[in-house]
Amino acid sequence: MGAVKSKRMPRAVREQQMLDAAVRTFGQRGYMAASMDEIAELAGVSKPLVYLYLNSKEDLFTACIRREAAALTAAIRVGVRTDQPADRQLWDGLLAFFTHTAQNPDGWSVLHLQARIHGEAFAGEVAAMREEIVAFVTQLIVVAAREAHRDPDLAEREVAGLAEALVGAAESLAAWANATPGVTARQAAATLMNFAWAGLGNLMEGRPWAPPAA
Amino acid sequence: MGAVKSKRMPRAVREQQMLDAAVRTFGQRGYMAASMDEIAELAGVSKPLVYLYLNSKEDLFTACIRREAAALTAAIRVGVRTDQPADRQLWDGLLAFFTHTAQNPDGWSVLHLQARIHGEAFAGEVAAMREEIVAFVTQLIVVAAREAHRDPDLAEREVAGLAEALVGAAESLAAWANATPGVTARQAAATLMNFAWAGLGNLMEGRPWAPPAA
Repeated sequence: MGAVKSKRMPRAVREQQMLDAAVRTFGQRGYMAASMDEIAELAGVSKPLVYLYLNSKEDLFTACIRREAAALTAAIRVGVRTDQPADRQLWDGLLAFFTHTAQNPDGWSVLHLQARIHGEAFAGEVAAMREEIVAFVTQLIVVAAREAHRDPDLAEREVAGLAEALVGAAESLAAWANATPGVTARQAAATLMNFAWAGLGNLMEGRPWAPPAA
Repeated sequence: MGAVKSKRMPRAVREQQMLDAAVRTFGQRGYMAASMDEIAELAGVSKPLVYLYLNSKEDLFTACIRREAAALTAAIRVGVRTDQPADRQLWDGLLAFFTHTAQNPDGWSVLHLQARIHGEAFAGEVAAMREEIVAFVTQLIVVAAREAHRDPDLAEREVAGLAEALVGAAESLAAWANATPGVTARQAAATLMNFAWAGLGNLMEGRPWAPPAA
């Protein structure tokens, strides 16, 4: 809206460039090995400007985690249309997740790997994102079970466990897919859908697997 | 065999007592908050003796990770009898895993949580254990697929992905089960078996889930 001078880049734009450079550097070289010098250089700004905008390496890393977490959860929410049948919602959600993590391997490395191994403060940031995704998946399963008219038979605790299992499987598979040449997002999503859907589908139809006697 | 003096405890026994105390302290209070003082006190030995035997806090933590990792993989291997049908092997393996993690919540906290968030050296120790478990599960799925005579149709890469998904789901579910009052090992194992088996079972019989057109 008008008054931004053409020669000076708005602070928000510069900050995003710094975060782009930081995510790439943290994701590829690791939190410890990454230096503020190389992040500033990659962003095309001076190191003092990085400190002026983002305060410290810790704060810069925290900002990276928050931005990447928000982008990932947004990608999943946008991918899922809640007017679709349950299996289609799950497929769309998985495809959105694996597409996003494949297209943003450095962001995924920051979230899944780097943020988890460098202390409790960073790990807590990721845990908050994870809880949001688990809640989203739980809701998806609850609605699907209700549609299948098995709601009373699929206990709330069971659904919470299923959501934890699904999210853990997706995290593990995304790390593997990104580390394995030639595995596409669609293949990873199909593998997990195959793994998960027939099981979940049977459960919702009231056909649980029967354990042998204790 | 004979010459151990009754008043002096063998070094190996003392070391195990120190590791017991360390796993409990690291698991419950976290790696950073745990002090060598409280570990020595809990073990009933002097702090210098802990340093004499285990060298440093880092080395003590590494020893804890290695002991707990070996105990967990051993529990799974002992639980699975390879002369059983595939679904029984999977069930026995899951039950052994969830029983062990439920009975050793501090050990699981060390492996799944503490060892992952305090730097790359500790995380690498856990990654090695994880690779061993993934390889074990992969082999289980390969043999099961061969038994179902679908071996050529279930590609090696697909099996590797399924094993990653299953291990990730199990890790996630074990953390949830230990943090959720009233969830038994048997319930957690049944939840994952339900989630996984119908899906895997269908896959092995050559009935994959069909994704919608791209």
